Amino acid sequence: MAFGWIDEQARARRRAGLVRTLRPRPADSPLLDLAGNDYLGLARHPAVTGAAADAARVWGGGATGSRLVTGTTELHTELETELAAFCGFEAALVFSSGYAANLAAVTALAPHGSLIVSDAGNHASLIDGCRLARGTTQVVAHADPEAVRKALGTHEGPAVAVSDTVFSVDGDAAPLAELAAVCREHGAGLVVDDAHGLGVLGDGGRGAPHAAGLAGADDVVATVTLSKSLGSQGGAVLGPAGVIDHLLNAARTFIFDTGLAPAAAGAALAALRLLRGEPERAAGARAVAAELHARLTDAGLTAVRPDAAVVSVCAPSPEAAVAWAADCRAAGLAVGCFRPPSVPDGISRLRLTARADLTGAQIAHAARVIVDARP
Amino acid sequence: MAFGWIDEQARARRRAGLVRTLRPRPADSPLLDLAGNDYLGLARHPAVTGAAADAARVWGGGATGSRLVTGTTELHTELETELAAFCGFEAALVFSSGYAANLAAVTALAPHGSLIVSDAGNHASLIDGCRLARGTTQVVAHADPEAVRKALGTHEGPAVAVSDTVFSVDGDAAPLAELAAVCREHGAGLVVDDAHGLGVLGDGGRGAPHAAGLAGADDVVATVTLSKSLGSQGGAVLGPAGVIDHLLNAARTFIFDTGLAPAAAGAALAALRLLRGEPERAAGARAVAAELHARLTDAGLTAVRPDAAVVSVCAPSPEAAVAWAADCRAAGLAVGCFRPPSVPDGISRLRLTARADLTGAQIAHAARVIVDARP
Repeated sequence: MAFGWIDEQARARRRAGLVRTLRPRPADSPLLDLAGNDYLGLARHPAVTGAAADAARVWGGGATGSRLVTGTTELHTELETELAAFCGFEAALVFSSGYAANLAAVTALAPHGSLIVSDAGNHASLIDGCRLARGTTQVVAHADPEAVRKALGTHEGPAVAVSDTVFSVDGDAAPLAELAAVCREHGAGLVVDDAHGLGVLGDGGRGAPHAAGLAGADDVVATVTLSKSLGSQGGAVLGPAGVIDHLLNAARTFIFDTGLAPAAAGAALAALRLLRGEPERAAGARAVAAELHARLTDAGLTAVRPDAAVVSVCAPSPEAAVAWAADCRAAGLAVGCFRPPSVPDGISRLRLTARADLTGAQIAHAARVIVDARP
Repeated sequence: MAFGWIDEQARARRRAGLVRTLRPRPADSPLLDLAGNDYLGLARHPAVTGAAADAARVWGGGATGSRLVTGTTELHTELETELAAFCGFEAALVFSSGYAANLAAVTALAPHGSLIVSDAGNHASLIDGCRLARGTTQVVAHADPEAVRKALGTHEGPAVAVSDTVFSVDGDAAPLAELAAVCREHGAGLVVDDAHGLGVLGDGGRGAPHAAGLAGADDVVATVTLSKSLGSQGGAVLGPAGVIDHLLNAARTFIFDTGLAPAAAGAALAALRLLRGEPERAAGARAVAAELHARLTDAGLTAVRPDAAVVSVCAPSPEAAVAWAADCRAAGLAVGCFRPPSVPDGISRLRLTARADLTGAQIAHAARVIVDARP
């Protein structure tokens, strides 16, 4: 049996209680959602879904080809122009996913002979970018500019430091200003994934690089997703025009992928315009996260103080985390449950996402359910 | 300057005449499109765009999270069930792109200590899958089962052979039955990318594995895109239920990516149902390709006999290919232009895609334009 070895892995997963299953949701789920990444509550906003619908009707169900052949519509260009301007960068390039954007940014900016200094807590897509890149990767301690400084000091030639701006699992922020200073000392570039920062951090949700005064710098590149605060699908790389032009010419996940579907581009553009017109949404998400954190820690739970919209609550074991999440679900509350092997440090947690559109009553109810179900 | 080295690469590209640029298209382009991969002409079909619009309105602008958290809707499950059944496989798993599906299939099925035997003409996403996988890759001559046999003979333990079913650049088909036989001799798995086969090859467009009698075999895994014949965006892996379950548990581009946007899932499902109800569309695309090939070769051009819907026409040089494509465009015809470094063999070509909905007059006109513009 060609794939017989898979069965043994499946048995090991079952023994360890680590079997993953899909849980298809209906369109009108009765659950209160604190598990998704729709931080601003825009995925179901009629202006966003309406724009997706219009874009599909006007531009078609798909982009029909690579962005370099038939897959660039004027809608893609409009989105790129407005996204770059909003976040304060010179140019932007839209991809079919944030994963693809990260693979592109890291591989295209770390050629043969270069050094990549990668935070130990980085997202899987940045890690895969490091693995695919021709440069050499050095993994350094989490959120530690001094470790980045030491690593950069060992290398001559092109180098980049790579980091999430807000780490997905714990919701803690990277020390961006310090990282940028260290990179500049060494003439290295800084590549940051602002997936969890766009729409939440910075002036009106312009993101963590903007908040740190790094947007538009000639040595900083940011990636974002269109699938979290912007309620759609896709990703983008933001940076100097020369870097974006380089990606367009060299990044395999740009050249050899079909362009983002028009509906997703339209939805993201509508969400971006909503956010621009209602900048208070960003602070709203942060306030919800802070209140959720306060209620949980007041009740004696251990939770990481949120730097953005993710609230991470410690669980005593993988089994306890799974049972806790299941009990919340039974009580009408969807929460994320992160456990090995998808967390880098082996610590299991509930992962809660604060949505800007949660009401005070919903926040209080959610906190009560989580506290009541504690292991 | 952190990214100063990019400028030198940009200058080298300009000197070599290899600068790529985006060419945003309007919604109502006057060009006759023989460049996109919308083989069945379904991307603009009202049933497809209507389904995309409906899905966005009912399910939201995005999936809101990983497929394992909030990103699986009942619409995703419906698409997976119908896609697997149509192609003759036990199960399917939908991804945000074909690129992501290929990375998932290759990395999850080639663990540490395994051998991957990869065709020299494989798509970039399969190559990146090989690079990311923990197994060791051996690249073998294009479409050469004997070379695969030799490579497999050098290895003990898990092994897979990986191949496109229809190669993107030249449109030639892989010798699937022979590959499967060689794999079976050695107890190896076969992973095939049917991006250009689904909707075009096999009974009613069920794809190349179905045509070769390999669909549903316990040692065969196929990947497909939803962005070509199905006129949408996304990709899928098809295979035995145990393999699909393994991917769901182990494939990083599944676990750490946001689920496919509902609009794209809805569009692909509508296109699949159209194809099921109108199976003659598949043969239509093949017939258009054959007629296009006949007209071009009758006029003295060198073109690869198409095994599916891609017709590849040789150009004498990269510069001639670029000029030829530009002249076609000036005459109202969009054609693809492939040249180094995005072709594996250094040969520049025009790449034409046959759409099932082209009329006889359009085919004759397209052939005339191409022949008249020959270098």
